Amino acid sequence: MKPIIVLQSDFSLAWSAVASMKGVIKSVDRTLDIEDGTHEIEPYNIWLAAEELRTVESCFPKGTVFVSVVDPGVGTSRKASVALLKDGSYVVTPDNGTLSLVKETVGIHEIREIDVPRNRLTTHEKINVFEGRDVFAYVAARLASGCIAFSEVGELYSVDDVVECEELRAKPILKEGYAKGFVTYGLSHFGGIRLSITNVQFEEVCGFQLNDLIHTKITHEGKVLFEDDVKFVKSFGYVEKGEPLLYFGSQLYVSLDLNCANFMQTYDVHAGIAYEVEFTKG
Amino acid sequence: MKPIIVLQSDFSLAWSAVASMKGVIKSVDRTLDIEDGTHEIEPYNIWLAAEELRTVESCFPKGTVFVSVVDPGVGTSRKASVALLKDGSYVVTPDNGTLSLVKETVGIHEIREIDVPRNRLTTHEKINVFEGRDVFAYVAARLASGCIAFSEVGELYSVDDVVECEELRAKPILKEGYAKGFVTYGLSHFGGIRLSITNVQFEEVCGFQLNDLIHTKITHEGKVLFEDDVKFVKSFGYVEKGEPLLYFGSQLYVSLDLNCANFMQTYDVHAGIAYEVEFTKG
Amino acid sequence: MKPIIVLQSDFSLAWSAVASMKGVIKSVDRTLDIEDGTHEIEPYNIWLAAEELRTVESCFPKGTVFVSVVDPGVGTSRKASVALLKDGSYVVTPDNGTLSLVKETVGIHEIREIDVPRNRLTTHEKINVFEGRDVFAYVAARLASGCIAFSEVGELYSVDDVVECEELRAKPILKEGYAKGFVTYGLSHFGGIRLSITNVQFEEVCGFQLNDLIHTKITHEGKVLFEDDVKFVKSFGYVEKGEPLLYFGSQLYVSLDLNCANFMQTYDVHAGIAYEVEFTKG
Repeated sequence: MKPIIVLQSDFSLAWSAVASMKGVIKSVDRTLDIEDGTHEIEPYNIWLAAEELRTVESCFPKGTVFVSVVDPGVGTSRKASVALLKDGSYVVTPDNGTLSLVKETVGIHEIREIDVPRNRLTTHEKINVFEGRDVFAYVAARLASGCIAFSEVGELYSVDDVVECEELRAKPILKEGYAKGFVTYGLSHFGGIRLSITNVQFEEVCGFQLNDLIHTKITHEGKVLFEDDVKFVKSFGYVEKGEPLLYFGSQLYVSLDLNCANFMQTYDVHAGIAYEVEFTKG
Repeated sequence: MKPIIVLQSDFSLAWSAVASMKGVIKSVDRTLDIEDGTHEIEPYNIWLAAEELRTVESCFPKGTVFVSVVDPGVGTSRKASVALLKDGSYVVTPDNGTLSLVKETVGIHEIREIDVPRNRLTTHEKINVFEGRDVFAYVAARLASGCIAFSEVGELYSVDDVVECEELRAKPILKEGYAKGFVTYGLSHFGGIRLSITNVQFEEVCGFQLNDLIHTKITHEGKVLFEDDVKFVKSFGYVEKGEPLLYFGSQLYVSLDLNCANFMQTYDVHAGIAYEVEFTKG
Repeated sequence: MKPIIVLQSDFSLAWSAVASMKGVIKSVDRTLDIEDGTHEIEPYNIWLAAEELRTVESCFPKGTVFVSVVDPGVGTSRKASVALLKDGSYVVTPDNGTLSLVKETVGIHEIREIDVPRNRLTTHEKINVFEGRDVFAYVAARLASGCIAFSEVGELYSVDDVVECEELRAKPILKEGYAKGFVTYGLSHFGGIRLSITNVQFEEVCGFQLNDLIHTKITHEGKVLFEDDVKFVKSFGYVEKGEPLLYFGSQLYVSLDLNCANFMQTYDVHAGIAYEVEFTKG
């Protein structure tokens, strides 16, 4: 069977951009199976694109062709690329930091810069902006359908040259009974936050255990936004409605939330390196 | 052909949760056909999950496997279940009231509690929160693909023990020329509301007829939010723009709206038992 | 292979309306491939439906069956129709102006009024409002699956009688070094606007060239909302963050935006004939 194509972007579903990409893919090959990642990534936020890409990449079959288009530098000299991951999946994306996390967790076997003049849809003349459709979706479709081999995408370049987000280098501070990191991700829909500390680090390096009350402090540019003793539990049902909880998030990182309420809105906490979190054993 | 899988949830499409469920399903069986119900159910609102489930269940082919994940009790002792409906379709869901309406309208033939340790995806270790992906989507995929039979899901339990929402027991008061019920559903996108009185009851028990002007009063905790004589018409085009109308809703229940305007926002009316509606023949 | 069905509407994805249409289609024929256009068209805005339809129509394979349901006149005497376009694709839609732009750009070969009593789903009795599901989606499915031929949809009527939006007749004023038009489309998600002046007209009739600074004025009912010299560039990366730019839009029309900021919100500009735009060579 031909690989699935999975699309993610910051285009939203409020207009026909995503549908146009699907139309181009189906025009290349009617038999291709297209699935959606999220298209509601915060506009131009490459770090969140990297986060979402890592999440979906881990769930789909190996060999899937992912297309990620969050591209503040559209039309400039950033490379349009196709990465072959070490697990056999592909990512078609501007090389602008979007690959940061799959590079770290899965690894990139090889990466090629798309030879755009040879590999773009030219049906829509006098058009030069929508690379999501005419380059990224089009190349993904031709690769998935077997019209072109990976080697025909364009020239190889060094995996060492893949652009990385600065968030990657902001490692947490971890000691027995203490951890300090930042808010890497926020689910504005529910309000929970994910931290730059893995479940494994929290338990094995810092020694925090289920049912511990952990002193938790969130600061932003020196201002304390949240400070409380928070229970570390298995899941939401173990605390009262409205109470905060720490839990092992489904993305392998420690997460913080309010049960049935919106943590981010209640405490004005957002995602980013500037939102620092400290945990101390009570 | 293998059954279709239909997913609904309160996850929204703003992050990769739904895509992750689809990735797990496709990893079980590439040939499965996945369709989306809505993923924008009001968070934790089980009654609305029951409403949306009944709606989609009635439209898809018999034998479809529905997955509904609106789960305020995630991680607690509520059962993870698979219901076999009397029409041959399946519902994979936490047994928390989500089944209320398909139980009433279609009927449940048998229900089994998922034996989670035997029927969960274990690829993602150190993860214990995202049951939507690792239990519900995974079991649905294995059932639809034929990897497991319904009997292998887990132990049978009594259909009498299926959890029901309290809204089910709040029956309307119906007399010749009079009806009293509550607002069961609100479409915030357009602003119309649906009432706990069926089209058939309204016409056959109460005797209301097309083109009647019906005195309509909506109260919330004793406060009158709306009171007017409203025309009962075939559809929106039969009243002026901005005027209220009563009509036979597509979900078999009497509905109230403003033509080309937002009833819910204009009169601050929401869904729930506390929003009472009375109709009197003028 | 059977044609793809592409659905667009103003229903939003916040409830099960779109899923119900898909359920009816799959109940007609399990093998049909359904893709989504946008379902977040501004409610009742036929002009935007026409815009989105033209966009997706140009990207999908010829022969595709498009369903567009933006229908302020639901239940009134407007025709429910199926248009066969000159490129072999079909559009199933209320004939209310939605066809304006595909008629102009692709052309309509023939159009038939759906004989609704003969071509509607009657499973859901006592229901008379949801034509999107029971007429438009149902007819599209039966046509795509081959259950009915185009000739069995209903009677032919004259293509000259197809309803057109008034926006179609508002032609731009174009001279050497001068252009005047209106805002045809706004992407509220990003904030950019599209104008009623094609890329070709702008370059070949008015003589504007890349890197020109063009004096740009937007007025609404005599009030100036925006007035500045704007650079005409290849794409976003060629101006500073926060700066305005003119560029050749991917839809063949000249577009105006702020780099990494929201033009529409910043200057309170919306789409419509009342938002006039004038360009003068500086």
